[in-house]
Amino acid sequence: MKSLIVLKIGGNVIDDPSVLKTVLHDFAALQSDKILIHGGGKIASKLMTGLGIVPKMFEGRRITDRETLDVVTMVYAGLINKNIVAALQSLSCNAIGLTGADANVIPAKIRPVKEVDYGFVGDLNSECISANTINNLIEMGLVPVIAPITHNSEGILLNTNADTIASSVAVALAKTFHVQLVFCFEKNGVLRDMNDDGSVIDFLDEASYQQYKDEGVITAGMIPKLDSAFAALHRNVAEVRICSPDGIHQGGTKIRIK
Amino acid sequence: MKSLIVLKIGGNVIDDPSVLKTVLHDFAALQSDKILIHGGGKIASKLMTGLGIVPKMFEGRRITDRETLDVVTMVYAGLINKNIVAALQSLSCNAIGLTGADANVIPAKIRPVKEVDYGFVGDLNSECISANTINNLIEMGLVPVIAPITHNSEGILLNTNADTIASSVAVALAKTFHVQLVFCFEKNGVLRDMNDDGSVIDFLDEASYQQYKDEGVITAGMIPKLDSAFAALHRNVAEVRICSPDGIHQGGTKIRIK
Repeated sequence: MKSLIVLKIGGNVIDDPSVLKTVLHDFAALQSDKILIHGGGKIASKLMTGLGIVPKMFEGRRITDRETLDVVTMVYAGLINKNIVAALQSLSCNAIGLTGADANVIPAKIRPVKEVDYGFVGDLNSECISANTINNLIEMGLVPVIAPITHNSEGILLNTNADTIASSVAVALAKTFHVQLVFCFEKNGVLRDMNDDGSVIDFLDEASYQQYKDEGVITAGMIPKLDSAFAALHRNVAEVRICSPDGIHQGGTKIRIK
Repeated sequence: MKSLIVLKIGGNVIDDPSVLKTVLHDFAALQSDKILIHGGGKIASKLMTGLGIVPKMFEGRRITDRETLDVVTMVYAGLINKNIVAALQSLSCNAIGLTGADANVIPAKIRPVKEVDYGFVGDLNSECISANTINNLIEMGLVPVIAPITHNSEGILLNTNADTIASSVAVALAKTFHVQLVFCFEKNGVLRDMNDDGSVIDFLDEASYQQYKDEGVITAGMIPKLDSAFAALHRNVAEVRICSPDGIHQGGTKIRIK
């Protein structure tokens, strides 16, 4: 089975040009087949401020109305995605930028309205990923670079969580590849002490994860990421790692079932 | 030889949602292999105004400085390209949006500085087109939708004329396909009288083109388009047609060498 690295880079990586440059350099140097999935960062918020658009929020979560959808489409699928693709091309990495609409790689569902209407937000799971199409692009020698925008197959683009895209793509491709899923963000890994960047937990299995949660060591922001990491491992993804921009090749926290 | 239609749609088509919808519907219905190339339209200018960016012009031509490049990348490669792709997907047309950077389909050259520095503007010819890659995407059953943004292979995106992309792509693919190049814009075709939409010239060959130019019937804006149309015919493109949004399937002005 061929190896595939699915690297997700978060907003903080994208917001710092020198960090992004390093990450893209290390990504381009990876010898296996690979896919890059990027988040959004602060550029969309800055653009909204510049245009006088007031973000609509509900309990700290953004509502994607029409104006916001247009902005995130411009920034994520246009500015960020295409600059990453051009940078990778300059590093002899034959990148192809995609949203979920392109080649229908990720037909998602608009999030159902319950207490809150989140607007143009896409929900998806690994069943939504067109693994064959992504596989064919990789076999052409291309490196997919996926923006956090999907579509509903009825002509509507949808703002979509990049972590969810990354773990769904990793699971969907695990049928064909030995998949390593790497989440790259601003910390050195999962930390014992949020304020101590040296307190990286080297290995995390389900038992120790539960213990760290019970002790309140692992909280809030990390929990959805780790839940989806364990879910991916249960669905045949071979390895999951959470690391800093310096840790693309190795380091950070390795997640194991046991 | 298989048939391929290369359809270029101009800014005026993109700026009118109902016209764009009709054109995409007709494009999706075309039975042959096909490629869509779109221009920019007025959205980028509106966004610049909204952001308080003053367009830099020289003798009526826009200078693409860094800020302008970011705006056109957002609007052309993001907002316009991805909404077209999503709309085509809803019409069961398996579109894939591309800039010249994606899969390196159009490595261009930054325009040399002579009297004027036009900034981040790309120049290209048919030799720049990665015909094999485009061909492979078409063989996968995909329909390329190309935004007027290229790259210089050194990490820089470039604002690029969509008519030039369309004719260069048509010429490059003419080695493999029987190519029909169609320019769709706001007029019914090449007109004898600019103010009479019924005065379409049905057929135009090089002799009659020269005569119309001598008589001042064909002027200014149409000349570069027609020059590149004749150049494409001389380089094995089988047919060139200039038509209105109602004329995707037939009608407008047919261009012939003789």
